[in-house]
Amino acid sequence: MSLREKTEWIAVDWGLTHLRVWVMGAGENLLAERSADQGMGGLTPEGFEPTLLALIEDFLTDGKTTPVICSGMVGSLGGWAEAPFQPVPCAPQSTASIVSAATRDPRIAVSILPGLSQTAPAPDVMRGEETQIAGFLQSNPKFDGVLVMPGTHSRWVHISAEEVVSFQTFLTGELYALIARQSVLLNAVAIDGWDDAAFEDGVSEAISRPESVAAKLFSLHAAAQLSTPAPEAARARLSGLLIGMELAATRPYWLGQNLTILGAPKIGAIYARALSLQGLQAPVFDAAPLTREGLMAAYDSLTAPAD
Amino acid sequence: MSLREKTEWIAVDWGLTHLRVWVMGAGENLLAERSADQGMGGLTPEGFEPTLLALIEDFLTDGKTTPVICSGMVGSLGGWAEAPFQPVPCAPQSTASIVSAATRDPRIAVSILPGLSQTAPAPDVMRGEETQIAGFLQSNPKFDGVLVMPGTHSRWVHISAEEVVSFQTFLTGELYALIARQSVLLNAVAIDGWDDAAFEDGVSEAISRPESVAAKLFSLHAAAQLSTPAPEAARARLSGLLIGMELAATRPYWLGQNLTILGAPKIGAIYARALSLQGLQAPVFDAAPLTREGLMAAYDSLTAPAD
Repeated sequence: MSLREKTEWIAVDWGLTHLRVWVMGAGENLLAERSADQGMGGLTPEGFEPTLLALIEDFLTDGKTTPVICSGMVGSLGGWAEAPFQPVPCAPQSTASIVSAATRDPRIAVSILPGLSQTAPAPDVMRGEETQIAGFLQSNPKFDGVLVMPGTHSRWVHISAEEVVSFQTFLTGELYALIARQSVLLNAVAIDGWDDAAFEDGVSEAISRPESVAAKLFSLHAAAQLSTPAPEAARARLSGLLIGMELAATRPYWLGQNLTILGAPKIGAIYARALSLQGLQAPVFDAAPLTREGLMAAYDSLTAPAD
Repeated sequence: MSLREKTEWIAVDWGLTHLRVWVMGAGENLLAERSADQGMGGLTPEGFEPTLLALIEDFLTDGKTTPVICSGMVGSLGGWAEAPFQPVPCAPQSTASIVSAATRDPRIAVSILPGLSQTAPAPDVMRGEETQIAGFLQSNPKFDGVLVMPGTHSRWVHISAEEVVSFQTFLTGELYALIARQSVLLNAVAIDGWDDAAFEDGVSEAISRPESVAAKLFSLHAAAQLSTPAPEAARARLSGLLIGMELAATRPYWLGQNLTILGAPKIGAIYARALSLQGLQAPVFDAAPLTREGLMAAYDSLTAPAD
């Protein structure tokens, strides 16, 4: 059988800046994986279908409808079709609330998974991370504790009884990028490199005096004017200050809690180090495969025989 | 007499993004005022002299040398000529440490005033604000207390006996601009408009829980996804959160202190409101004329007969 004939369904992770598809055969068999930098942020509603077709065309068969299941910002208002948020507490994945996106090509049937929302204690939303959480819970159904999900926006997610109880999102990663690459600190902070001691000092100072962070940021610039500190140390210190401020705010999420980090290995290890300074051990799970695992769980749930 | 003949010296405020000159006659008489958006940030060392000459050409006389006194980032490393920082505690203005910039045109003699630096309690620097402080002290020589100088970088400056004792700089204004115009909050936050109550809530929340600011920033975005809050209120709240965080860090600078705000009237009033919520009254001085007054003090000091 050709790959085209073997194709049973297609899993899609469509975020603001990226598009990733997995072509799936029977029995959770991965036939192909493709990606493009055509995130939903750069597309108009009419642009979604042709963009997706260009990536999956050679796996589609005339006269047959292939299910396509999507997760991520593609389901936001202004995306392909809006999949309204599901309010927590709830299971991370709600296939009953999946939304169909209109298509012209009869060879695909596209559905989009909803994100999660919270109104109290503070308004919050996620789109895409809930699929990673569902993927994680597939292999860790008994997990009870807090998932730490670092990234552009880092999320602390309280999980109990296979439900998301509450969560809190921080702008940390986005602030880091804006400050390191676009502020007055541009020349003080290296693009790469690291210094453990500088990172640890930053974390400790921000945890004990979080209000001082905006002043300590300017000090990084001032120090570079007055002497020649290593820009790698400044980079690590900046990261430490911002992550330390996040830890100062998330104390109820980590104090006495069972913690697991889901993230890219590099930033995951940085968060693990910051938590270890507070005496906490948190294993790091690579988040990359979790989205596909979450989408596979959704497909299984949608195709399971009715009770 | 023509303006050209009346010209005695020229005052220059040359910052990162702006250039402003005041053409001065005898007896502190302002003959003309000109400005351009050719800040030092966009110039190479060779670009300074022609850029300045283009603005002042018609006030220069062949065979006569006109003094030009500059303040601001033009004196930084990479500027026209480096005027090394003067370490605090010291008077805000040090004409003894003024630096000459080389020129080709014999009709001008350019000098640049130094900025101020601090190594402890934290590394810090200023360039340009010290001239505003000198201008303020011209008419308020007995001032003893703290000057609050909001702006892209806001500064809290402890003044005693006509000296700068210490200071602390915050990235607040720059953070506001990056977050409001370039982060995920772009669509949640209005470009203009205001809401007093939202501002005051932001200030109070950030003062009492400064560590929560990065989470509250994301909540502004989430709230805009879940309902339709007024973007003007979100703008005021963002401003309140960032200024509140600054107030949380500057407590030793304002608690029981004599305060005066030097700034543009709009942002000056916003800081005054935030301080009034802490029960503090701080008069607002428009900073715009202070730079020229500081440069006039420098010229007087340079041309005063030796004792």
